[in-house]
Parts: sequence; C-alpha cells; structure tokens
Amino acid sequence: MDKVRVGIAGLGRLGKVHANNIANKIKGAELVAACSIVEDELAYARNEFGVEKTYTDFNDMVKDPDIDAVVIVTTSSQHCWQIEAAMNAGKHVFSDKPLGVNLEECLQAKAAVDAHPELKFFLGFMRRFDPSYAYAKKKIEEGAIGTPYLVKAIGIDPESTVEGSIKFAKTSGGIFLDMAVHDIDLMRWFLGAEPTEVYATGCTFKHKEFSEAGDDETGVAMFKFDNGGIGTIHVGRTAPHGYHVETEIVGTDGTLRISPIPEKNLTMIYNEHGAVKECIENFGIRFDEAYRIEMEHFIDCVLNDKTPSVNVDDGVESTKIGFATTEAWKKGSAVKI
Amino acid sequence: MDKVRVGIAGLGRLGKVHANNIANKIKGAELVAACSIVEDELAYARNEFGVEKTYTDFNDMVKDPDIDAVVIVTTSSQHCWQIEAAMNAGKHVFSDKPLGVNLEECLQAKAAVDAHPELKFFLGFMRRFDPSYAYAKKKIEEGAIGTPYLVKAIGIDPESTVEGSIKFAKTSGGIFLDMAVHDIDLMRWFLGAEPTEVYATGCTFKHKEFSEAGDDETGVAMFKFDNGGIGTIHVGRTAPHGYHVETEIVGTDGTLRISPIPEKNLTMIYNEHGAVKECIENFGIRFDEAYRIEMEHFIDCVLNDKTPSVNVDDGVESTKIGFATTEAWKKGSAVKI
Amino acid sequence: MDKVRVGIAGLGRLGKVHANNIANKIKGAELVAACSIVEDELAYARNEFGVEKTYTDFNDMVKDPDIDAVVIVTTSSQHCWQIEAAMNAGKHVFSDKPLGVNLEECLQAKAAVDAHPELKFFLGFMRRFDPSYAYAKKKIEEGAIGTPYLVKAIGIDPESTVEGSIKFAKTSGGIFLDMAVHDIDLMRWFLGAEPTEVYATGCTFKHKEFSEAGDDETGVAMFKFDNGGIGTIHVGRTAPHGYHVETEIVGTDGTLRISPIPEKNLTMIYNEHGAVKECIENFGIRFDEAYRIEMEHFIDCVLNDKTPSVNVDDGVESTKIGFATTEAWKKGSAVKI
Amino acid sequence: MDKVRVGIAGLGRLGKVHANNIANKIKGAELVAACSIVEDELAYARNEFGVEKTYTDFNDMVKDPDIDAVVIVTTSSQHCWQIEAAMNAGKHVFSDKPLGVNLEECLQAKAAVDAHPELKFFLGFMRRFDPSYAYAKKKIEEGAIGTPYLVKAIGIDPESTVEGSIKFAKTSGGIFLDMAVHDIDLMRWFLGAEPTEVYATGCTFKHKEFSEAGDDETGVAMFKFDNGGIGTIHVGRTAPHGYHVETEIVGTDGTLRISPIPEKNLTMIYNEHGAVKECIENFGIRFDEAYRIEMEHFIDCVLNDKTPSVNVDDGVESTKIGFATTEAWKKGSAVKI
Repeated sequence: MDKVRVGIAGLGRLGKVHANNIANKIKGAELVAACSIVEDELAYARNEFGVEKTYTDFNDMVKDPDIDAVVIVTTSSQHCWQIEAAMNAGKHVFSDKPLGVNLEECLQAKAAVDAHPELKFFLGFMRRFDPSYAYAKKKIEEGAIGTPYLVKAIGIDPESTVEGSIKFAKTSGGIFLDMAVHDIDLMRWFLGAEPTEVYATGCTFKHKEFSEAGDDETGVAMFKFDNGGIGTIHVGRTAPHGYHVETEIVGTDGTLRISPIPEKNLTMIYNEHGAVKECIENFGIRFDEAYRIEMEHFIDCVLNDKTPSVNVDDGVESTKIGFATTEAWKKGSAVKI
Repeated sequence: MDKVRVGIAGLGRLGKVHANNIANKIKGAELVAACSIVEDELAYARNEFGVEKTYTDFNDMVKDPDIDAVVIVTTSSQHCWQIEAAMNAGKHVFSDKPLGVNLEECLQAKAAVDAHPELKFFLGFMRRFDPSYAYAKKKIEEGAIGTPYLVKAIGIDPESTVEGSIKFAKTSGGIFLDMAVHDIDLMRWFLGAEPTEVYATGCTFKHKEFSEAGDDETGVAMFKFDNGGIGTIHVGRTAPHGYHVETEIVGTDGTLRISPIPEKNLTMIYNEHGAVKECIENFGIRFDEAYRIEMEHFIDCVLNDKTPSVNVDDGVESTKIGFATTEAWKKGSAVKI
Repeated sequence: MDKVRVGIAGLGRLGKVHANNIANKIKGAELVAACSIVEDELAYARNEFGVEKTYTDFNDMVKDPDIDAVVIVTTSSQHCWQIEAAMNAGKHVFSDKPLGVNLEECLQAKAAVDAHPELKFFLGFMRRFDPSYAYAKKKIEEGAIGTPYLVKAIGIDPESTVEGSIKFAKTSGGIFLDMAVHDIDLMRWFLGAEPTEVYATGCTFKHKEFSEAGDDETGVAMFKFDNGGIGTIHVGRTAPHGYHVETEIVGTDGTLRISPIPEKNLTMIYNEHGAVKECIENFGIRFDEAYRIEMEHFIDCVLNDKTPSVNVDDGVESTKIGFATTEAWKKGSAVKI
Repeated sequence: MDKVRVGIAGLGRLGKVHANNIANKIKGAELVAACSIVEDELAYARNEFGVEKTYTDFNDMVKDPDIDAVVIVTTSSQHCWQIEAAMNAGKHVFSDKPLGVNLEECLQAKAAVDAHPELKFFLGFMRRFDPSYAYAKKKIEEGAIGTPYLVKAIGIDPESTVEGSIKFAKTSGGIFLDMAVHDIDLMRWFLGAEPTEVYATGCTFKHKEFSEAGDDETGVAMFKFDNGGIGTIHVGRTAPHGYHVETEIVGTDGTLRISPIPEKNLTMIYNEHGAVKECIENFGIRFDEAYRIEMEHFIDCVLNDKTPSVNVDDGVESTKIGFATTEAWKKGSAVKI
C-alpha cells in the first residue's frame, strides 16, 4: 500500500478540516469517500475535494472494499458504534475525541479495537501533536524539568463563541465532559499516571443561561494521581481575549509553561493600550497544524505498520475521568475514580 | 503628634527590614526602642539605628511612656499575647503576619483590638501594598475585569533556601500554615468574599525530608467562596528559578495576572540558553518596596487617625482558613470552613 | 489549466524546500522536471518526488513543452540569465532572491520580464508571506499605527552556522549584499517609499576571518527615504541564541514589533537560568511556512491570472540599494542612491 | 562629617524630586537651604521640607558656611557658571545633566572642577543608577555577553506630553541636544569608548509644529567609535503607549536588552485588546529609584571621600557629541567628532 484510501464520516466544521488535510496536505492519503446525513456536506466533499463516492449510511460506507481507513468526525454519541462497525468491516479507524459519551459504549468500542490487533485505531487528542506540546513532552523526556509532579491545565473558549455554548448548555453533558477531556488527557500524558480522586466545582457569573440549564460557565477541578502527583483543570467559556489554552507542568528541576499568552503571531503592537499581543480567535487556528500532524501520524501508522501514539485506552480513561469529574462537580464533593 | 515614636520587637531578618524602614525611610516615624531576647539584635539596633532604649522583656517595653506604637516582628507564637499587652498598655500596634498560631489566641487578640477602638491595629499582609498588587486591586475596583470570580494564587520559595525549610519542616505547622497565609489573604481580598469549603492535597517528589517530617514540598488547595466564587492555591518550596509569587484574578470581562515571570529587573539576556529573564532570588527583594509602603500606611493611620486597610479580622479569618486547609490536607478530604 | 507543471532549477538546501512544497504541499502545482549540475540533486528529485525529467542544462529544460513554469533556486549569479532564457521560452518564472549580483544583469532580467507581460514573474521575498509579517502589513493598511515613518530591521545568523559564513566571506560580496537584501525589501515595503541616501559601517569583534577577508561580522546602515521616512538595518552573523530576524515599524499612532524574541514555539521553561524562551535555530525553520505560502501565491497567480505581489522592480531596487549600501560601507561615508 | 548639609538650586519638577530625596530619603543628607528666582518654589521648600534658609541669588547661597554641598537643578544654561561659583566657594557639587549648553562653558566648568580635586563633582546621568541599567553594566563586567560592540539606544517621550515639547521646540536646541544626551552617555558607558563620527537625520510626520520650528519629532543617529564599535540612537516625542526608554547592548557572546516593554508594573491584563502590558507614563516614574540612588551615591562620595562614578569629563564629552550630532542632523551629512 502506498496510499491510504480514506472515507470520512461527518463534514461539519472539524470534519472539513480533516477532509482538507487528507485530500490536500498528506502525501500518503487519498480522500475517496464521504458519509453524512447532511446533503450539503456531501456536496461539499464532491465539489471541494472531488470525492466520488458519497454515503448517507455509515454501514454502507464501511462495506466499500476501496476504502482502507475510516475517519470519524460525527457527533460524539455516534463514535463508538461507528468505531465498532468500521473495525468489524476491516477498516483502520481514526476517531475524533471523545471516544464516547458513556463508559459502557467506550468499553464496547475498546472491545472492538482489542479484537482487531491487525488494524490501527487512533483517537484524536490533537493537542499532543501541537509543536509546542510535543516539544514540552520531548523536553520532559530529556529530563529538562526532572520528574513532573503537577500539571495545571487551562482551556477557555472565547467570549465570541458563547452563544453557541449557551445553545448546547442543556445537552452538553456539563462543562467538564464538554470541555475538559483534552486537559484530562494532557494531565495523564505529562504525568504518566492515572488520577484516583477528583474534587470539582463550577460557577456562572456572566451568562446566567448556563446555570439555568444546569451547566456552568467555569469549572475548576483538582485531581490526585496514583503516583502521588497532582493535577488541576480550569475550563471556561468566556475569555474576552480569545481562545486560551495553557498548560503548566511542574517538575522537580523546572517548570514548563505552554502558551501563557495565546498570541496570534510574533507581532506585538505598542499603542494607546500599552504593549499588546493580540490573541488567537479559536481552536481551529490554534491547532490547525496539530490537526494536520495527527492525521499524518495516523496515515504513517497505517502505511508503515506503526503503533499509534494515542490509543483506545486513552479514550476509555479520559471518559471515565470526565464522568467522575462531572459527578464531583454535581455532588459538590470528592469522588474516587 | 508629628512623629510616631516606635518600639520594635524582634530584629531577625524581617525585623531588620522594618527597623530600617522606620529609622531611615519614613518621615513620620522614629525608631526609639527595641526589644529582643537576642543581645546581638539589640546591639544591631543601637549601632545601626542609634536606638537608645533596648529591652529584653516585651512587657517592659510597652510600659515605656515615650513609645506611641509597637511593631511586632517576633516569632508567630508570640504575636497574640504581645498584641494584647501592647494595646492594653495604650500603644498602636503593627503586627507581622500571621496573627497567631491557633484560632483561640487569634480571637483573644481580636478581643484586645476590639476593646481599643482608640488605637490603630495593622496586620502585615504586605503583598497588598506591592505596587503590582495594589495596581491590580485598583484596576478591579475601576471595573477593568468586571466581577472577579476566580483567584489562582501561587507562592513558591526558591530551591536555594530549601535547607532552611527542611530544618523547620517538623515545626512549621505544615506547608499551608507556613506558606499559604498570604495567598489566602489575597483570595479573600480580590474576591471580596469568604471561603466556605476547602479541599487540599500535597506531595513531595524532591526532598524526602519533608514527607518524613509529616510536611510536604508542594501543596495544592481549592476553595469554594460564599459568593459562588472559586480559589486555588499552589504553594511550594523548590523553584529552581527563584522566588515565584504569582496571582491570577479571573473576572467576567477580563483577567489580571500578576508576575507570571518573577523577573529580577527590566533586563533580558539573549545567550546560548535563549531569551532569558533572570528571576528574583527571595521575598526580601521581591517585596522590599511593599514592606516600606505598608509601614508608611501604618504610620499615616496613626498620625492622621485613619483606618488601617488590613485589620484584625483579616488575621482571624486567614488563620481560620489556614487551619481548615491544613485539616483538609491531612485528612485528604473536603472540609467546611 | 488546473495544475501548473513546474520545472525546478537548483536543488540545494532551499531548492529542496521549494521542491517539496511544489511536489507535496500545493494543490495546483506538479513538479515535473528538475535541473542541476549536481547529479545527487537530480537523483534526489527522482527518488523523493518521482520527478521523471531531469536536466543538466537549464536551456534544455526551458525548451520542454510540458513545463508551464520554472522555479529558479540556483546560485545568485545565475538568476538573471536564467530568468531571461525561461521567459523567452514562454515560461512563468519564480526566482529566488536576490534578482542578480549586479545592476546591469538585473536590468537585463527586468527587460525580459517587461517584454513578456503575458507571463508571470515572482521574486522570492518570502518574509512578506510570513504570517507575522503579513499580519503587520495588514494592520498598517488598516491604520493601526497611522503613517509608518521609521523601519528598524534586524537580521542575524546564528553562531552555529558561522563556519559557513567564514568560508564564503571572500566571495559573498560583503555582508550587506549577502544578508541585507530582505531587510532592504522590508523597509521599502513597509514605508511604501524609496531610499535616497545610505550611510553604513561594519565591525568584526569575534571572528577575525571576516575582516581579514575584507568582509565584516556585523553591519549597520541608515537610510533616508524619499517621503521623509527613515530606515536602519543591523545585520550580523553570530547570534548565540539562534536565528534572529526582527523588524520594527514606527508610525504616527503606534509601533509594531515583529519577533523581538525569536521563540522556537509557545513553550517557556523556568529553570536555573531564569524564565527562558528557547530560540529558533535557522532560517529554514523560521520561514518554513512563508516558503510554502509564497509558492502558493505564485501558483495561484499563474493559474488564475493574478499579478504577483513581488515583482522584478522590487528586485532591481533592492539590488541597487544593496550596492549603494555596500559602497557606503566600504567608503565609510554617505552615498546617494 | 556625618551629615552632608545641602543647598539646592532650582525646585522645578525634577528639583522637587531631588529635594524630597535629600530631605526625606537619604540618611546622610540634610536639606538646609534652597535657592530659586521663583518665590513659590522657595515657599515649597520651606513648607514641605522645613528648609529655613532660602535664597534668590545663587552667589549668596554658595557663600553660606553652613552648606557643604550644592545640588544644581536649574535650567541648563545656568549649570556651568553655578558649578564654577560653587566650587570656588568650596562646595561639593551635584549638577543635573546636561553639563552645559555649549562646549566653551563646559570646558570652563571642567577647569573649575579640575582646579578643586579636594571637592566632589557629580553629573546627574541617573540612568546609570537605574537598577536595570546598573545590572546590565554589572553583567557586562562579569563577561555575560563577551565584548560589547554595538549599542542601540531608544528614548521616546510620551504623546501625552507633546504639547510641552512643541512649546519649547524653537529653543530646545534641537531634538538631539534636548533628548539624546542620556543615550549618548549610555553608549559611551557601555562601549567604554568614544565616538569619532556621527551621521544623523530626523523627520516630523505627526506634529508639523516641530519642523516649522526648525526642530524634528524623531531623530535617528549612527556613531562610529574609536574601538571599532558602533552606536545608534533613536529619539522621539510621541509614543502613544507611554515613556519608552530602551537600550540594547550587543556583545560577542550575547545581547542585553533593557526594557523592551516599558511596563508599568508586573501586572498583565487579558482583555478584548489581547494580552496587554500597560506602560510607564513618564520619566519621573520610570527613573524615580534612579534619582534616589544617584543622590545616595553623591552623598556617599562626599561623606566617605569616594570618587563619583560620573564626572565632569562625561559631561564635556556628551555635550561635544550632542553638538556634533546636531550638526550632522542639520547638515544632513556625516560629521567627525
């Protein structure tokens, strides 16, 4: 095989990003099929990327013998059964995060993945592939900060997209399931350990719609890890300056801080406000490169029989932790994981 | 009165700083007496500042009719009875933080202060007087970040002084009582609210001596506040880069971050390591100006019959919270305050 | 035409970057031919990019009817005649900077370009396409800093590549021709004006080999512009921290500063040196994205009959200014341009 | 002598700063006399500092046997004769910069200083005493950047004070004499060398009043030094963000950059503009500490018979260079110094 023939499921905002990377930016991949229940998305695939085969039924697409791999970018509640169906049909699978929306289906997806060691499965925790995050990980592995023991993760959506968040507040599963799964993954990845207990709380000071819907505008959680390490997460939805994702890893010999200023680029303006770094607007811009690199990684694993660096267990664990965090937040007390 | 005649108790490291400010840097103050059980400290007062009256017994000093105010910089366990004795002797009192080492004595000190409304009492939470912290407070009062609802406070001692911390690990009362009281005060001050519950944990990855002594190298705590706000504290003892005190205040319309880089001064070096900001070595250098300004404030209150901006209740509350945090850390569970 | 069939001339370090972009990263381009006098480079083109047609004679390649455009990345002294030959053979031309090594040949190349208005010519001033530089330009056009009147441009190669610079010191044409042409272009671009006089000097404090070869390690020049504006250039060869390209544009209402810290990525390390931003190693890493974007721009111009944003006049002018600067440096006095 | 009894001449804005430092902040000094032709200033000295002896004639004040030292903060054109008169009357002298307004009177002042080796003379180049500048100098002396060979100095007044600058544009002597003398001193100090040639130009893009008055809004100059080093100066009057003083020193092994962001304090704001550092408003705030430290240094030299670190030759040289720079700016060509 010198080209992986890919069928994509879901062509919403992020689906389009993945489709474009597959079609135009990754040498070893070819976008040959698309599946969506939205006709506009299929038309987009045909017109933008010249995709000839389009499907409205995922089960049909995975039967297509001309497809080697399936990229799943559907809504979260569809991920698990689609993973199962695709693997049982003999396809390599790239699934966007989260793995699933409850632990049961995650374990079912895991069973399917485990049953097919001959196929590659990759879960889209793209932050790990962002050059700055990858660099931090490499520095840690090189010993630059000694043993890491505390991770502080921040992820705040921009105020500019708050209307959308409000609209989905009732069905989002709560701020921690909705927003913290990347941060949970980063904590596990940087500490190389698993959390055993979580304490969480939330608040809503600006947009009452969140608390009225049973959700919160801001969530803060604290984790004890099985190696003695500690983690904290701060997620929010209303950063006025832009999309703020920041992570700090404290080690015995030093600290790494990734993106304390989510700067748009290398330009600084001195004006009547002071010395100003303008900030990144949204996740698509921030992680544009990471989305491409993670897909390159997946394609490389398929082509060259390598082991993907994010696997189904990362999905199971992060979902488990997300649910425990949500329980802690709702109960207002510490919860064992 | 155009000069406040001050007697100082305690001339250790911080006592010397206060003595020097009183003697040399504050127009309205005069250092007229010193009290210490260490003869060297009294000699220092005589030689450095020309102090004529020296005492070994605090009760003697407070009887001196030529003293208007007493500055208490003794060990923490002496603060409360000295406050009481001084106020009962009719002296204005500046006490270094913490107010006391247990809640009972704090309440006793508070009773003494409350019994003397004609006298000024000030508690040395000097961080509030640091120009950057004072500026942040002013910006918040001006509405620059809307309503503040989350405070994240960090205070890490430099690795260079870890030997001293190890030596006192057994008797320090634990990392939260030893180190977090300033951060507790800052959370209360910036949020304008009181914490109702705390969850805390700690870890020791570098210097086993801490955990062996029942203490910890790093402590992390999370607080729920009565107005719905949230606070987090991260204290530590082994920052390789220097003395790291940083505070972030998140509000509905913006965020303030104070000292994310504890830079030594305005100079940056580009060298083989990269673009480097060297960092501040210790608390004395970091808060040198704050120590002077808080003393100016105290003297101004005495001279001009103003109300000190930090009062005995701030001491009682911060001590109460420090003990609750310590309890949460030791029990490993959430504690109501 | 829906794909531009490209022949590349020169596959040295930068040639490989361009070849890879054309072959793998730009949808509308196809790499169909390569020309080099170095057999290894042709083998590289065949093996890496599957290029079938390889040439050792540039004149042969430009006769190939299956080629629409030629990308010239040969040594500077070959650019002009190759541009002329390619255009006369009816090919669109992308030439790497500088346009040429003396004004006469630049004017000859210009004549060829001017004689073929039906063909596109683009000169590779890639810095203009770097996201940070492009953003600065856009901000200026939007009025963010009022009228720009002073540009300060810095370009310093890393100490790590100084051996190469020393080797070519005798034949480089001097530091200003060798290194300042991008900075000259940036000054013209940001000020929208032409320099009328230049004063320049240089020095060599570290590696005597430069002055012994009649060159210099550091060059500083100052320019008066025909609109009353001012420019300064500082070029050097021995930055210990990495590859330092920085540009400041001062305007009536604000200042833009691009890349004052040539940071490798968004990660900062706090360690025993302080708070450290590691820096970019070399121009390839710094301008990786710019090289791709400028090529996309060229291909887009060819495919969609657009006017390239950098033209032959930019090449003529920058060369003229480079020579005047070199004359000023050698004579040690101001020179009219 | 354990206290230096000081008479101050001139109590304008900066005079008040010096008077306050002498009266209130420096242990070894006493403010005993004041001289001014403005009655309000004398009243200020009496009321604020309790100065009993006030003079309207400088010659009278220097005859006062109760004065040990004279601090001259009068208008620049008065400095030289007052230095001469004070020294001939046997007083130690602190003079604010510049030494004088033409070279002749500078040399006359120098003769007076040289004639009195028993008396201390200090010239107020306070930037050398700013903690960041002093730190940079110390780092250089310790070898942190190898041999310094290029100094780039920037000094820009805030837009907020431009009205005052416009008012004095006709009589200021031109932007280089008015504003560059500190930067000239810094170049000499950091390079440890003297300039031999200067090339300069200026421009006025915002406030035409400057060019109409024969002055300029912005000045840029370039200097060759006798050790082969290079200097550049950029002075201006209209920074929208505040008072911008920045200096870069490039050495063989590294670069120091002092205050690239003239930050008001350690607080950063994230708001709708981005990540914002507010900037310092004016020179008084920026160099508040430096003014105190330089005065401490002068008093220490008088009390303990030490040699002041800034001397009359620094004044003569900087004035000479300021005039040469002004000549270069006016003639539009290089000028030998």
